[in-house]
Parts: sequence; structure tokens; C-alpha cells
Amino acid sequence: MADFPVTERNRVRRMHQRGQYDRDTVYAILDEGLICHVGYVIDGQPYVIPTAFWREGDHVYLHGSAASRTMRAGQRGLEISLAVTLLDGLVLARSGFHHSLNYRSVIMYGTAAAIEEPEAKRAALDRFMDRIAPGRTAECRPITDQELKATTVLSLPLDDVAAKVRTGPPVDDEADYALPVWAGVVPIRQVADAAIPDPRLPEGTPVPDYAARFKFGA
Amino acid sequence: MADFPVTERNRVRRMHQRGQYDRDTVYAILDEGLICHVGYVIDGQPYVIPTAFWREGDHVYLHGSAASRTMRAGQRGLEISLAVTLLDGLVLARSGFHHSLNYRSVIMYGTAAAIEEPEAKRAALDRFMDRIAPGRTAECRPITDQELKATTVLSLPLDDVAAKVRTGPPVDDEADYALPVWAGVVPIRQVADAAIPDPRLPEGTPVPDYAARFKFGA
Repeated sequence: MADFPVTERNRVRRMHQRGQYDRDTVYAILDEGLICHVGYVIDGQPYVIPTAFWREGDHVYLHGSAASRTMRAGQRGLEISLAVTLLDGLVLARSGFHHSLNYRSVIMYGTAAAIEEPEAKRAALDRFMDRIAPGRTAECRPITDQELKATTVLSLPLDDVAAKVRTGPPVDDEADYALPVWAGVVPIRQVADAAIPDPRLPEGTPVPDYAARFKFGA
Repeated sequence: MADFPVTERNRVRRMHQRGQYDRDTVYAILDEGLICHVGYVIDGQPYVIPTAFWREGDHVYLHGSAASRTMRAGQRGLEISLAVTLLDGLVLARSGFHHSLNYRSVIMYGTAAAIEEPEAKRAALDRFMDRIAPGRTAECRPITDQELKATTVLSLPLDDVAAKVRTGPPVDDEADYALPVWAGVVPIRQVADAAIPDPRLPEGTPVPDYAARFKFGA
């Protein structure tokens, strides 16, 4: 797939060799992430909030209570920076200076805008649920008009975006390789454990596959 | 321990019953986190970056290349918002509307300032390494003056801060509990896998405990 354009804003500056701009890499990181961190400015004050998100094609979506500060600001068109970070490991080098982290991250910039049309909003929310739990929209009680009104969905075009990825062992100063100190990587990953049924669930209710064997990523 | 003061800025507004302001809760979340997301404003543009951090008492520390945009801005005193988020589970309710996430997060606000005094900076970096890998500072090649000069350490007072925590099963509308749909929680956590030795490590180099059995949190 085509690369995203490299701009003055999205260009990876520090450790620029870790920058990646191709859709395969960006999509894979976004699709494995369950939460993002959204940064925005209100009255000159920076805010960062963690929130769920999802991607469809070249758009990223956020949702929340229509009464929340973030969503109200989004209703008016909100310039945001959005980060999705997957931590893959601790990189232990032979000097403190070369210690690092293995990670895959995406940072994007743009203006989030609300989806106003109720049926488009409903469809987006349904697709979000089916992204996390394929088929669950059809199983759940459908969203009511009142719930739809109480929910804001923001859409952010995916164009001003870059991925940054570090993998592999430490990179030490050549002279340090002779030092008698252990070096390597401690891999880190997210796992899903056995699903915990709601205490009020009738006994014997079968656990759907998406809960019994939750899969990170597409 | 004493609570942090509740201010107009740190007060948890949405789902305010999830807000917690006591030091035990805030410290525990910060100490389990390995990365934070830092938000700041430069020329009116919001930025969010993921980065490592550590806490000592009522301060949080960040570090990075002295040449980086964030660190250069920090040298001048940078107003930031900082979030640490631990995802604990997917909460699957009987309606889409009541789906949620279990999480523990901390959001703090303040002005980050650089530690200028070289020995104070060196000591802070050494304590950071020993936080991740207890005892490793004494094993590694010490930081050089040049490396110290190339590294900026920012300090942020921990006072304008709140934790937000959701735990437990879904909370459904009373009528929905009768629906024949599975509901519950898919627990999610971070794990550390077996350490991967650097390919250039002499065979038989013993794996230190902090790498063989990495522990999240204090």
C-alpha cells in the first residue's frame, strides 16, 4: 500500500531511522492498540487523556459522553495529536546510556470532527464493537436513540501520521562489548486471561469465542 | 498517606466516582507504569509523545536527548500534562452503551524543569536504572561526562494529580440483565517473557534476577 506523505509535522526527528510511513505498519500498530492517548489544547492548557479508539481505512475514531470536555471540544473541531504505543521490551545495554525500549508507536495529527448524522454514528459504534468482539453487535441489546444522543463520535483523518519502531538487541559502544555485564532484551507483551463471567449471568451461558480467546490486532 | 489536593484542573469530572486522590493509589499506578504519554503545546500545536519515566517521592522524572524538541522545550520550563495508563480488561455489557474498560490511570499537570546540576542529573539517571533493574547501575559502565551532557532530565512536581480507576463487572440497565447475552470481563495484563541474551554476550553469562524475573511495580 502507498506510504503516507512525510511532512514537517509528522517527520520522525530523533532516531529518524526508526520512522516508518507505510500503511501496513501504521495500520498494524493502530489495529493492535486498544487505547490511545489524545492530546489537545484548551485555553492554552495541554491535556492528555487515555481513551478507546478504532480505525477504519484512513480514519481513526474516538467516542465518549457528549457531555465530556473532550467531546464537546471535538464538536467544534478540535486539533489533536494522538499516540498509540505498544511496548515490546526493555533493552538492557552494557552502559546506562544505551538502555532503551523496544516499542511500536504511531503518532498522528489532525482535526477531529463529530459525526452528526445519527445513522452514521450508530453504524460507526456498531463497527467499533464488532472490531473488539466480532459479531457482538448482533447479540447485544441495540443502542437506543437516547444513548445515541448521549454519545459523541469523533472522526480524525489518518494522513499526517508516522510510525516509530525499535526492535532487536541493545546497540552498545564497541569497547563496551568486552565488559562482563549481562545485556539483552526482556520481552514485554499484553495478554488476555480467561474471561470472568458477570456474577449475574445465568449459569451455563456459553462464553463467546471473542471473549474466550481474545485476539489483539486484526 | 495524605491525599493530593483536588483542584479545578485535576478534579475527575466524567465518572467522578472513579476519581482517587490518595498517594497510595497514585504512587502504585505510577510505579507499575513503564511508559507515560506527555502532552505539551508548542506554537499552539498539541503534541503527545510516549516516553519512559520514573517517580521518586512527589516528583516524576523524564529524560531524553538534549537535542530533542521536547527536552529543549523542557529546558525553558514546559507546561505539560502527563498520563500513565494501565489497561486491566475489556468490560462486555449486555448493551453496547455500557461496554467499558477496566483500567487504572493517573493524569498530572505541571511545569517540567531541567535538572541542571551534573551530579544531581547523574544520580537521578542512576536511580532510574536501579528502579527498572535493581543493582544494575553498579554493574554497568558508568555514564561519561559527554553522555551526561547529551542527556536532559526533566523533573515535574507531583501535586496537581488524580488517579482514575474502574474495576469489576459490567453495570447494565436493570432490564437488560434478563437478556440471553454473555457478559463479563476479559482481563488484560502486561507480562514479561524469558529474557533474550544479546547475541554478542559470551556464552554462560548469568542472567541477573531483574531480567530473569522482571517485576512490574515496586
